[in-house]
Amino acid sequence: MRIALKRGICCVVFAVLLAAITAAAQADPLPSWNDGKTKSAIVEFVQKVTDKSSPQFVPAAERIATFDNDGTLWPEHPMYTQLAFALDRIKALAPQHPEWKTKQPFKAVLDNDLKALAAGGEKGMVELVMASHAGMSTAEFEKIVTDWFKTAKHPRFKRRYTELAYQPMLELLAYLRANGFKTFIVSGGGIEFMRPMTEKVYGIPPEQVVGSAIKTKYEIRNGKPVLMRLPKIDFIDDKAGKPVGINTFIGRRPIAAFGNSGGDREMLEWTGAGSGARLMMLVFHDDAKREYAYGPANGLPDTKFGTFPQSLMDEAKQKGWAVISMKKDWKVIFPLKK
Amino acid sequence: MRIALKRGICCVVFAVLLAAITAAAQADPLPSWNDGKTKSAIVEFVQKVTDKSSPQFVPAAERIATFDNDGTLWPEHPMYTQLAFALDRIKALAPQHPEWKTKQPFKAVLDNDLKALAAGGEKGMVELVMASHAGMSTAEFEKIVTDWFKTAKHPRFKRRYTELAYQPMLELLAYLRANGFKTFIVSGGGIEFMRPMTEKVYGIPPEQVVGSAIKTKYEIRNGKPVLMRLPKIDFIDDKAGKPVGINTFIGRRPIAAFGNSGGDREMLEWTGAGSGARLMMLVFHDDAKREYAYGPANGLPDTKFGTFPQSLMDEAKQKGWAVISMKKDWKVIFPLKK
Repeated sequence: MRIALKRGICCVVFAVLLAAITAAAQADPLPSWNDGKTKSAIVEFVQKVTDKSSPQFVPAAERIATFDNDGTLWPEHPMYTQLAFALDRIKALAPQHPEWKTKQPFKAVLDNDLKALAAGGEKGMVELVMASHAGMSTAEFEKIVTDWFKTAKHPRFKRRYTELAYQPMLELLAYLRANGFKTFIVSGGGIEFMRPMTEKVYGIPPEQVVGSAIKTKYEIRNGKPVLMRLPKIDFIDDKAGKPVGINTFIGRRPIAAFGNSGGDREMLEWTGAGSGARLMMLVFHDDAKREYAYGPANGLPDTKFGTFPQSLMDEAKQKGWAVISMKKDWKVIFPLKK
Repeated sequence: MRIALKRGICCVVFAVLLAAITAAAQADPLPSWNDGKTKSAIVEFVQKVTDKSSPQFVPAAERIATFDNDGTLWPEHPMYTQLAFALDRIKALAPQHPEWKTKQPFKAVLDNDLKALAAGGEKGMVELVMASHAGMSTAEFEKIVTDWFKTAKHPRFKRRYTELAYQPMLELLAYLRANGFKTFIVSGGGIEFMRPMTEKVYGIPPEQVVGSAIKTKYEIRNGKPVLMRLPKIDFIDDKAGKPVGINTFIGRRPIAAFGNSGGDREMLEWTGAGSGARLMMLVFHDDAKREYAYGPANGLPDTKFGTFPQSLMDEAKQKGWAVISMKKDWKVIFPLKK
């Protein structure tokens, strides 16, 4: 009798467990994505590359997915997060540089004169980056960046930048990883600017972050080895630099790539040129209400950065790259406040 | 009665399983290593960084171990494997370059005149590398390297290079990975020369290989994107370049590093300068009978490559880096023939 009872309990426990497992398996892995062809394209792609009986099955070691960062995983408006960091850094360093009061592009930064700043062009921008990103050890720079992320807030959303990763993309990253993918960031942003936050924000460890870099030099300082950051550009991980960076750092062609601008065109071309199943997607900023709408493909002026030109939209259509409409495809943009 | 019998069988099955698990846990993970302080140092290090109750516990994400390749994971004598490849490649290309018959350093290669080759110094070596490693796409180069590894054999051991990874080091790599480590190669060798074989030989995927590189350029060729290999050095991953490469590619300081020559000194210094438990080891080539003995620390002439200078031995002693004696610490050198 007691044995029969135990077996009965056992059966109930088993049934409950089975139901829970089935429910989990059927639970939506992308709850912030509206149903539709964009979401279906993602799920169908993942199913066919992970199903061993599928002719398009891809072994786990080859499931590489690359993501642009600014505009793809978090906002890039009203300015790149890294530019906001550089401007804050110039202001913090200004007391040690009285000459900056009269010298461009530093004067423009101290005067909050974005027009004069823009007039300085790329040359001015490089000067700002070198003044704010070089001249210290890698460990010192990591601390400066980490501290900045703790307090700096987005001017419109009034939340820390690290709280503004797009919720649907966080779900996509987790969904891919749960299906054996290795997720990489491949960004034009500074590699050492991103690494202090990518693990916490995106679940992406530093060794899976590819980005632009300045040169570093090994030195012994006070008897201890350090890597000094030199004011010299080593690599620009943008446009045609993205396939170069992917090949150098990853050494394997991605099977999925996600971008949002002209800077990602070559990454998507490179990904798409491989054989077998591929998924190329572009986040399209068409949601002025909840985030931003910008760029020529929206019929809006070219903002000079994060540009989604009409030619990219045409190439996407021609090559079957999916365009993610933030407005239509995403239920929410940002994670709930904790 | 039948239920009692079933429960009896159940108990037996459970006991057998438990015994098997216990045996597996106690099985020696490094069977090709002789017992002694070198082997103990490895096992004790792994135990203390993986034991959650240890004050020196390291989370899995931070368990990064870096390995030099030539002389650390496989032989580097009588010449670097990559040099053997370059010489074979020059000979294969010679019919298309009649001028090489009279032009150094190519003439030296075609005449098998290693003395004249050595006389050409670094400049000559760079010329050979560029002629054999550049001017094709990355995909073409990968195929050339893969094909070469299928047939090329080591002149003394008469086995394919890919069959000559040191058995004790293969066990060490597997042991570290079984304990949550990510294992990386950090070699002065060419990154795209190593990647076609590291996964098969060492279980190390391409994205965990750091090495020297030439520049590549994204191009559209016959309507398809390719990365062309240019005859221009991009990065030398040797000596002070190793910490630079580690920082660029991995973005995290290793907690364990393994080398065998002066080229690994800075990698070990950089690894050792971090806080918490560390393991730095040098493979010492003192086994002329089973492999090779060379270098000043053996009281032998400086062979100009794979050099283990006396100053490195002194630094190892002073800093507590372990020196692995191939002769005393390793039961076997190479894997059994299949």
